[in-house]
Amino acid sequence: MDAIDKLGLATALAKARKSYQEGGIPIGAALIHHGSSTAVGDAVVLGTGHNSRIQKSSATLHGEIAALEDCGRLKAGVYQKSTMLTLNSPCLMCTGAILLYKIPRVVIGENKNWVGGEDLLKSHGVEIIVVDDEECKKLMEAFIREKPDEWNEDIGE
Amino acid sequence: MDAIDKLGLATALAKARKSYQEGGIPIGAALIHHGSSTAVGDAVVLGTGHNSRIQKSSATLHGEIAALEDCGRLKAGVYQKSTMLTLNSPCLMCTGAILLYKIPRVVIGENKNWVGGEDLLKSHGVEIIVVDDEECKKLMEAFIREKPDEWNEDIGE
Repeated sequence: MDAIDKLGLATALAKARKSYQEGGIPIGAALIHHGSSTAVGDAVVLGTGHNSRIQKSSATLHGEIAALEDCGRLKAGVYQKSTMLTLNSPCLMCTGAILLYKIPRVVIGENKNWVGGEDLLKSHGVEIIVVDDEECKKLMEAFIREKPDEWNEDIGE
Repeated sequence: MDAIDKLGLATALAKARKSYQEGGIPIGAALIHHGSSTAVGDAVVLGTGHNSRIQKSSATLHGEIAALEDCGRLKAGVYQKSTMLTLNSPCLMCTGAILLYKIPRVVIGENKNWVGGEDLLKSHGVEIIVVDDEECKKLMEAFIREKPDEWNEDIGE
């Protein structure tokens, strides 16, 4: 995890905390475009978002989808030089969105609480970095303990 | 294709025509819940939608995602007794959404213009019915001919 990943994960975490404060599912995400180098000053945060199942009665606004939506319309080449930062392991819908746009790199805050489509991402050559971040784990653990029905609904269980 | 599929595809087609009239990508979709029988009177159209890339500068509102969004929050068991009707072969994002919610059946208007994640759906046991509908084919052909850049953007190319 380099400096831009650290900034991206902290940005996603801020969105997750906001969602949790609103009573929502604490998963945030950010899409960051890399510049010509790995320097932070060469990167762009294209979009950020958080799960809005509870806030917007949405079945599709997971963190990653919300971040992609926040980006608006982008050319294929932009996605292909970007990293998706997300608090938790991406579900199959978000996995599919990452594959559709050929996003080559995904940084995952934690995957102890749940594992989504990581194998599918890997089979398409997507680089996955699992940070195993303590706050990401605790936030998700707290939500699952407090609202198990809403969590199950979000993962189609 | 039974009567409820016919109604569902016609409903999705109406959404696609609307999108095309707005200058948008002509892909519509509908999610239909089956009742206790295959009779039309026992079914419910839970949600409908169309691709809104152009209309809403959206990178995620493909027809199927828009239809799922239109449904709002549903329990897992509802999706598991539903059919997704869509004009064209679902992309990997929409495929992933169908798999997330374990929708067991997908009716596709046509897949001559483009093929998305059908193999992945089949590998998860999803029943796929390709109608090979003439109007679906012509609508998509017309859009791809008229706006090739927008179409490529929509499929991440």
